[in-house]
Amino acid sequence: MAGNSFGTLFTVVTFGESHGKACGCVIDGCPAGIALEKEDIARDLRRRRPGGDTVVSTSRLEADEPEILSGVFEGKTLGTPIAVLVRNCDHHSQDYEALRDVYRPGHADWTWEKKFGFRDFRGGGRSSGRETLARVAAGAVAKVFLALSGITIRAWVSSIAGIDAPNPSDADFDFDETERNALRVPQSACAARIQEELEALKNAGDSAGGTIFCQVSGLVPGLGEPVFDKLDALLAGAMLSIGAAKAVSFGAGFAAAYQHGSTHNDSLAPCSDAAGVHYTSNNAGGILGGISTGELLEFQVAFKPTPSIRKQQTTVDKAGVVCDICIQGRHDLCIVPRAAPVVEAMAALVLADALLLSRGNKR
Amino acid sequence: MAGNSFGTLFTVVTFGESHGKACGCVIDGCPAGIALEKEDIARDLRRRRPGGDTVVSTSRLEADEPEILSGVFEGKTLGTPIAVLVRNCDHHSQDYEALRDVYRPGHADWTWEKKFGFRDFRGGGRSSGRETLARVAAGAVAKVFLALSGITIRAWVSSIAGIDAPNPSDADFDFDETERNALRVPQSACAARIQEELEALKNAGDSAGGTIFCQVSGLVPGLGEPVFDKLDALLAGAMLSIGAAKAVSFGAGFAAAYQHGSTHNDSLAPCSDAAGVHYTSNNAGGILGGISTGELLEFQVAFKPTPSIRKQQTTVDKAGVVCDICIQGRHDLCIVPRAAPVVEAMAALVLADALLLSRGNKR
Amino acid sequence: MAGNSFGTLFTVVTFGESHGKACGCVIDGCPAGIALEKEDIARDLRRRRPGGDTVVSTSRLEADEPEILSGVFEGKTLGTPIAVLVRNCDHHSQDYEALRDVYRPGHADWTWEKKFGFRDFRGGGRSSGRETLARVAAGAVAKVFLALSGITIRAWVSSIAGIDAPNPSDADFDFDETERNALRVPQSACAARIQEELEALKNAGDSAGGTIFCQVSGLVPGLGEPVFDKLDALLAGAMLSIGAAKAVSFGAGFAAAYQHGSTHNDSLAPCSDAAGVHYTSNNAGGILGGISTGELLEFQVAFKPTPSIRKQQTTVDKAGVVCDICIQGRHDLCIVPRAAPVVEAMAALVLADALLLSRGNKR
Amino acid sequence: MAGNSFGTLFTVVTFGESHGKACGCVIDGCPAGIALEKEDIARDLRRRRPGGDTVVSTSRLEADEPEILSGVFEGKTLGTPIAVLVRNCDHHSQDYEALRDVYRPGHADWTWEKKFGFRDFRGGGRSSGRETLARVAAGAVAKVFLALSGITIRAWVSSIAGIDAPNPSDADFDFDETERNALRVPQSACAARIQEELEALKNAGDSAGGTIFCQVSGLVPGLGEPVFDKLDALLAGAMLSIGAAKAVSFGAGFAAAYQHGSTHNDSLAPCSDAAGVHYTSNNAGGILGGISTGELLEFQVAFKPTPSIRKQQTTVDKAGVVCDICIQGRHDLCIVPRAAPVVEAMAALVLADALLLSRGNKR
Repeated sequence: MAGNSFGTLFTVVTFGESHGKACGCVIDGCPAGIALEKEDIARDLRRRRPGGDTVVSTSRLEADEPEILSGVFEGKTLGTPIAVLVRNCDHHSQDYEALRDVYRPGHADWTWEKKFGFRDFRGGGRSSGRETLARVAAGAVAKVFLALSGITIRAWVSSIAGIDAPNPSDADFDFDETERNALRVPQSACAARIQEELEALKNAGDSAGGTIFCQVSGLVPGLGEPVFDKLDALLAGAMLSIGAAKAVSFGAGFAAAYQHGSTHNDSLAPCSDAAGVHYTSNNAGGILGGISTGELLEFQVAFKPTPSIRKQQTTVDKAGVVCDICIQGRHDLCIVPRAAPVVEAMAALVLADALLLSRGNKR
Repeated sequence: MAGNSFGTLFTVVTFGESHGKACGCVIDGCPAGIALEKEDIARDLRRRRPGGDTVVSTSRLEADEPEILSGVFEGKTLGTPIAVLVRNCDHHSQDYEALRDVYRPGHADWTWEKKFGFRDFRGGGRSSGRETLARVAAGAVAKVFLALSGITIRAWVSSIAGIDAPNPSDADFDFDETERNALRVPQSACAARIQEELEALKNAGDSAGGTIFCQVSGLVPGLGEPVFDKLDALLAGAMLSIGAAKAVSFGAGFAAAYQHGSTHNDSLAPCSDAAGVHYTSNNAGGILGGISTGELLEFQVAFKPTPSIRKQQTTVDKAGVVCDICIQGRHDLCIVPRAAPVVEAMAALVLADALLLSRGNKR
Repeated sequence: MAGNSFGTLFTVVTFGESHGKACGCVIDGCPAGIALEKEDIARDLRRRRPGGDTVVSTSRLEADEPEILSGVFEGKTLGTPIAVLVRNCDHHSQDYEALRDVYRPGHADWTWEKKFGFRDFRGGGRSSGRETLARVAAGAVAKVFLALSGITIRAWVSSIAGIDAPNPSDADFDFDETERNALRVPQSACAARIQEELEALKNAGDSAGGTIFCQVSGLVPGLGEPVFDKLDALLAGAMLSIGAAKAVSFGAGFAAAYQHGSTHNDSLAPCSDAAGVHYTSNNAGGILGGISTGELLEFQVAFKPTPSIRKQQTTVDKAGVVCDICIQGRHDLCIVPRAAPVVEAMAALVLADALLLSRGNKR
Repeated sequence: MAGNSFGTLFTVVTFGESHGKACGCVIDGCPAGIALEKEDIARDLRRRRPGGDTVVSTSRLEADEPEILSGVFEGKTLGTPIAVLVRNCDHHSQDYEALRDVYRPGHADWTWEKKFGFRDFRGGGRSSGRETLARVAAGAVAKVFLALSGITIRAWVSSIAGIDAPNPSDADFDFDETERNALRVPQSACAARIQEELEALKNAGDSAGGTIFCQVSGLVPGLGEPVFDKLDALLAGAMLSIGAAKAVSFGAGFAAAYQHGSTHNDSLAPCSDAAGVHYTSNNAGGILGGISTGELLEFQVAFKPTPSIRKQQTTVDKAGVVCDICIQGRHDLCIVPRAAPVVEAMAALVLADALLLSRGNKR
């Protein structure tokens, strides 16, 4: 396929430029008979929307109201493609006219033009973060499907601008807090410190990166296809497909490279649930040999700082002439909080597909 | 596809269990008319073979002599599938009989059995590291194809057991050294220190993990498909598909999450080569918006320690009874040096595919 | 993929139920920089619309006005997904309420319900002929792309209700006539005879089938991938994916089974054009070994009669009780004339994909 | 994928040139735990082998002994790729040296060379009928899997050289006879008449085409994915991928185009089996809306006459010079009897995939 579709059985194709008429997706392969309503999708789209807090994110105001065009009848999925449409409303395309012939550092402007010979310069066109809206819509449908099997996905901000938040194993970790503060940080004091740092960066015309922690509960053992379609391989690909992602790690992650076998290996022990076995630790992050172990699936994703900054940078224009650039307009100072629902969505798409595949692959 | 094939236009399917009759692959989509001989494949298979140094790696002795069964005629590729076969010779399957009903910690034994209801317990069957042999064979063909476009891939060990080797930007980095020492470390003194540490681990019946650095030169800008098939997304998926991989990072990687936009962004500058533009730094690792920039493509992969250790571990058997296990047999104390050609092979497969896709996608 | 997408490099996914909110498609893989406007799509949608002549086709009146939602900027394709939306306006869903619990003979009502456990009974939902609208929209884009390479596709009605129209080799064959009469028959006298027969069938409450002839000019030799993705294999699959299609034949078709090698084989002869060789006859229908010969590509598709008839039929209802059924409502007496642009569209999608694949597959 | 692989969940890739070292396939996606032995494959390979009767088929003598290289352990499938290898033994490559620079009419010689710029001229290389051997091996595995669900596929010769054999509805149709005579014709008297006709063609240095009838029993309703992956669409593509196939038809086939709705539609009626409904006739050929009805699946495939004939033909050579050609060597006078197991194999691959897909697609 040509790069804009994802999945084997539970699939999605997304479309839309940042300042075009609309964004949307077509989900193909969602099983029939599942109760689905617009609000299931709208909820996650709101979680992805820019917060009211303009220090963190863009002041672009989009209603992001989804319309389900097909695939649902009398409140239930038909087993046919579910098309979801979101109209773009609040474009200030004129903000971007100045960027027609200039390549912004840290953006895909120049690489995109080298590839296609042509680009939509308005807000990055399809290389804009707005593209992730369609992923979130599709992921919301995948989550509804996964919930039927008791699978829950939650992602939060584990660090921003070098300030680390508590981990799930820490006493002061509070998951509920991640849905209360605009930064999606699992501790209010930490959120306040990050907020302070972001104010300073804002004044300096600069931006920040950060990390997302994602945790999936309710997985049965046995999901994931060995060799090339390992569960972690598919998740890694899904995560790095998100615009600003630069790294992904599972379980102990990079630290595993510094451990010994005797400290890294998770021991097996009998247990009384259906699986019959559990692991007494989880350095594996819930995946062994590319197959889910039934423990919590845990991974982290690193995001680079927002490339659009007010601070002056050096670049070249279309004529190849060196020029300075100070990027105005409405940009997220840090996209990481808004990336959390995108991480969840991509994880949901991978897991929905893995779940369907595991059912197909039977004698 | 069912998990054992990879790629869209330049594709490969691999087969073979560790102690079955043979391992091999079928490469489909390699263009016609390319000079290819058995030695092109045999060379990389030798690089992947266990070193003579038994402190580092398994003493299993396999000739690993490839046979090209199809797809080459009068010394040139036909554009038809290239099947490569490697017979397994040196099995000591009896070593594994004791593992028929016990699940080794850190291995895929239990997850595999939960998935398939059945497994080849001899040396891990298809979840064995021997599976990567077929990847290396396919990657060798991809490298020959990429070389025609001036693309070179090289991977080396950047750390083992917590001991970091020099980076390419360091004065004492010596790439040639990586092909001289069995550890594939780019500095002989560092190799010696690692060797010492591995001796100590061997005596303790333990094992080590490490990291691989991979660098690709000769890429033109414009490779990679936006959105889901970004070049880094495909590479990340490819890397995490390698057995013991736990994390992958591109360019600044996890450190990017701690940078500011003003320090992370790479500036564009005019240059006199065909691309017309280059970047004055490479925090991006050679990829922006999922598309190659034309700079060096750079990424790192973290590998966990070898799970098979002599040290006693706790696990359960098929009957669900807790038992202790001390794994005997021939195992790599650290698989990282042998993973380098595997990383190269997977990178080659991704890039060969991206190169073909970029040619197809034209007006 | 889950059945609603088509193609490898030039791809499309379609969505929409007959009486849902909308029908549409997302085309992914169309190269960048191609001039494309709404009218290119609207033109073929009009050719597919029910004719004014209610003897032939449904009196459902749909504007079928397409909206291009993405993928086009400043009049040219961006290389990003092109989403096309057509709202459904004229539903008389109440016409179908009576069919909620009854399975119509010749329709997919029962099989669909067996598969999905649930169906949209309004006009057949997604098994309706209205689904082909999205194919025609996508095919129109593919035609614009193919036209850049000088490739032209034309399909017409070669028989209806047992009345055969002239063939291209006949003196009275007139291609222009196929766009003049509502029946798309290449001779006005023949069209009149068919019209008469259809009037009789209408009075009898019955329906008719027929055949489509499709001819493609401008193909270079070398398109099509050997073995499973032969050009004729892909075209055959594409044609049988059209609702009422029951058979497809290439060149001499079924007659080839009755020929001898000496009469069937087409001789090669030198020629002065770029290909250097042409064939002195075309029993092959323009394809040898699954690869285009550069001669006219010719194939025929057989369509069964419209299953919805006023005449009384026997069937069963949801409770398993035998019942009689006389289908009222607005239905095509013969869908074959409207199938011609659908055949063209599917051929265009196959050929656009084959053209891109042939470019990717180079040293 | 690059043309040599087939299927979505139950997949196969084939390899091998006619006079290369070997032919074979890798089957990926066959579920684990199925009893499989070499003889399951060898049996169908023998059915595909040239008959002893040299009037019909080539005198090339190949043992065609399969070796299962992987994917089977202790007599059962592992859920891993099953690689099957068949060595080529009896090449008389020197027979073909004369064809190095000449393009045979009716063969893919010239189109293949236009596509790849290069070809294996020995016996057609990969465009040879020998390529189908690997399909038969893969199909044999698919049949074993299908048999577990009570699905049986049988194909026979329904006509050769213009002589029609009885149909299943005829009193003198005898399926067992198809495995007794070398022509696979379901009536001995008819076989004798065809044999006579073939003798005459042999003396004339000519060849014959024919048709295959394929019938599948044991299908449950609900197999096949609507829209593009309809069961008949996939079967049609599979059949036209067989070298000499020129047409395919389902149920009433081309005759459906001449029927009325009232004669073509199959009525539904209650029945006492699990499906609850059956059809009182089968013009549909067992498929409605692309989904199996549970009735017998029936289709026919037309094959052109063997292109290699002793009779003199006109062609061109590599230099573009017109020349005459009389093809010597060992060729099937009529490939149709040997095509029957190939038709079965392709049907088996489509159905195994459809069966797995139908299981994956559940809530």
